[in-house]
Amino acid sequence: MADEGAEEAERETVEILEQLCRQPSVSVEGRALQETADLVEALLAESGFETRQLRAEAGAPSVWGELRGRSDWTLLLYNHYDVQPADPIELWDSPPFEPTIRDGRLYARGAADNKAQIALRLATIRRLAGDLPVTIRWIIEGEEEMASPNFDALVASHVDLLRADACLWEGDSLLMDGTPELTLGVKGALAVRLDVELLSGDAHSGAAAVVPNSAWRLVELLATLRDPSGRVLLDGYYDSVLEPTPAQRRAVSEGSASVEDELRTAYGVAKFLDGAQGETLRERLSFAPTANIAGIHAGYSGPGIKTITPAQASAWLDFRLVPDQHPDAMLGLLRTHLDRRGFADVRITVVAKAEPAVTPLDDPFAARAIAVAERLAGRPASIVPIAAGTLPVVASLARHVGVPGLAAPDNAVYYGSAAHAPNENIRLADIAPAIRYLVALLDELGS
Amino acid sequence: MADEGAEEAERETVEILEQLCRQPSVSVEGRALQETADLVEALLAESGFETRQLRAEAGAPSVWGELRGRSDWTLLLYNHYDVQPADPIELWDSPPFEPTIRDGRLYARGAADNKAQIALRLATIRRLAGDLPVTIRWIIEGEEEMASPNFDALVASHVDLLRADACLWEGDSLLMDGTPELTLGVKGALAVRLDVELLSGDAHSGAAAVVPNSAWRLVELLATLRDPSGRVLLDGYYDSVLEPTPAQRRAVSEGSASVEDELRTAYGVAKFLDGAQGETLRERLSFAPTANIAGIHAGYSGPGIKTITPAQASAWLDFRLVPDQHPDAMLGLLRTHLDRRGFADVRITVVAKAEPAVTPLDDPFAARAIAVAERLAGRPASIVPIAAGTLPVVASLARHVGVPGLAAPDNAVYYGSAAHAPNENIRLADIAPAIRYLVALLDELGS
Repeated sequence: MADEGAEEAERETVEILEQLCRQPSVSVEGRALQETADLVEALLAESGFETRQLRAEAGAPSVWGELRGRSDWTLLLYNHYDVQPADPIELWDSPPFEPTIRDGRLYARGAADNKAQIALRLATIRRLAGDLPVTIRWIIEGEEEMASPNFDALVASHVDLLRADACLWEGDSLLMDGTPELTLGVKGALAVRLDVELLSGDAHSGAAAVVPNSAWRLVELLATLRDPSGRVLLDGYYDSVLEPTPAQRRAVSEGSASVEDELRTAYGVAKFLDGAQGETLRERLSFAPTANIAGIHAGYSGPGIKTITPAQASAWLDFRLVPDQHPDAMLGLLRTHLDRRGFADVRITVVAKAEPAVTPLDDPFAARAIAVAERLAGRPASIVPIAAGTLPVVASLARHVGVPGLAAPDNAVYYGSAAHAPNENIRLADIAPAIRYLVALLDELGS
Repeated sequence: MADEGAEEAERETVEILEQLCRQPSVSVEGRALQETADLVEALLAESGFETRQLRAEAGAPSVWGELRGRSDWTLLLYNHYDVQPADPIELWDSPPFEPTIRDGRLYARGAADNKAQIALRLATIRRLAGDLPVTIRWIIEGEEEMASPNFDALVASHVDLLRADACLWEGDSLLMDGTPELTLGVKGALAVRLDVELLSGDAHSGAAAVVPNSAWRLVELLATLRDPSGRVLLDGYYDSVLEPTPAQRRAVSEGSASVEDELRTAYGVAKFLDGAQGETLRERLSFAPTANIAGIHAGYSGPGIKTITPAQASAWLDFRLVPDQHPDAMLGLLRTHLDRRGFADVRITVVAKAEPAVTPLDDPFAARAIAVAERLAGRPASIVPIAAGTLPVVASLARHVGVPGLAAPDNAVYYGSAAHAPNENIRLADIAPAIRYLVALLDELGS
């Protein structure tokens, strides 16, 4: 693709991205999902893809597309068109579903996670159309931000449509210093809601000397689950954790150290958990399973105070799992842990589950993707053997389709992208390198 | 007052109550406070009271009224026209600010706490007008549900208007078995909001292995404040607690045991805190200071899950205090407790403060009020030396005006009134005995 074509692809990326970001496709709220699927399907069809909408028994539709290239070698692309909720909405500087460009950035919910990548992959493929080096299959789902509750069933029932030689997941980007990053594995997850309900209704807190308080009980329960250093206290939680291989440890040790500064800057971290820093911090990000409180709600939370003893208290937790922790097994440990400590009455509702999944460091597709990245950047790539995040699709595709996959730097996010947070954004300058990488990788795969 | 007059007063009570309950006078939300004060003032003026609206430097107006009787002996009445918020609004069977009568009950926010008493006191005084045995002064404030932040200043600057021989606070009622209850003291309170803020914005929970979590830190902090038996763990919290007198202990021991069943029924309590029951339960309600979580909020609390590490976490706490725990001293203990345990960064915001205050069991007005109650009921009264609740006005009136006070059974609430909760209500059948008591007490005081 000539420079002119590249510039055209950049412009087209922004146009498509703005279209996508105007859709408030918040999956946990069930908003605009069909409309966004229709838009995505239309965009693929306009670009020459054969398209379909696929559905599991429940849930939002997934968009599938296929565009045949010069060779039968097939690359599967994975993306999602859904986004996180926009709240707390009052912290946004511009409306989350009105994409706004200022200071070289495009602000919108979903811009970084991950509509920019849909846009730049599509714009790139459009520019290559007629001379596409390999065959592309693409699956774009609508429930990733809910941990893809129906995607596994969908993959299982459409294996023929998804078969491919390799898969690019949601992508990585260049790091702050220009080093390309590639991710070869993802953590699993178990997300649950815990409910305590000791009273039939909120009580006047004057009676708090004798009336049991659901919020206190939730606090007591949560305090048994993790220590202040971050270590998870569930009995048996670490028993099934595999030691990282020497190659995985080396990748982390030799990889970019910039994640520490990126996290510090993005979230204003004064001190990391347990004082972690440097290689220790990066090892924990890759290899440490977690227990995270995503939310707590009990009683009154407004101006002033309402002097009540809350009848109900709830916590939303996500456990990030590493090989070979399986979500169902961890759920069993959680139930047993609570029962043993007198919390048998506490209700556990599973909100999401995902297996951890890892592509070996010596996979041939991985080697080619890494080589292209290092050639373009003129420096060693940063390899993440297991990412801190979760992508349930990886486990589903590995199990049902058997396709190896990874995340390569064909994406336009950066340390300040604020995915899942207010003022989510991408830098427009990050689009061009992502397009260049994708073009070079497709060339390499077609050769 | 003849029976006919009593029936008329009952009817008039319901009419006035409906008018009052249509006002959404939620003080923490600043709703309809001036309108409700105007309505209350107009109702008093129509009944022959000389009226004024009194204001401190800030806050909602209080309504003051005076109606001269046959003697100069002056009884001060205290009420409040403000109410608690109506949320969770979805749990109401009828709209909270549309008073609805069904099954002999009147449902509305504020019906029990405490608009019914305003209505029945006013209807009673109207019926006695022209032959009122004593002089009545009445102060009706608008910020009781916020713990009366401006009332102390208002009392201090209007001592002359409030001077009286005795005071009836917000009233008690007959217990389930018909035993009259009188309350001679109230606990104090310190209400605070605690804020933890470790990040500049919510983080993606994929990084939870190293990014600090404000919700976990709040849980760790709260777990240091109270043990599961309800004992408060603040260093020095019990040092200033006075032992109850033998007379106070006797009153609790000989008092009605029904509160246990009332609490069990009202709130569906399966097991009281620390397994308390019987006399132990009643002693704790009267004499034990508390630490209560009124609310917690952190991160996401909605359908599904939002996988974030929350930047901020907040808890709303109220400590109920007994003689001689002073709220400012307890605030100092809380700050020191947190600092000592490494929580110096946690912000404490005082939401409300009230001193505990107690009228001695041998006060002469108390003796007359008890005697009238026992004569009408034909049985011993239940005496509560210190109520579980808080009424800051009591401390203010005791300190600035020097008037002894108590709560007598001239009110129409019951164990199912659900004050501060959805479906707040009174039983219409409870109005008549309250009116009878007030008429008899006024007769006694004028003789």
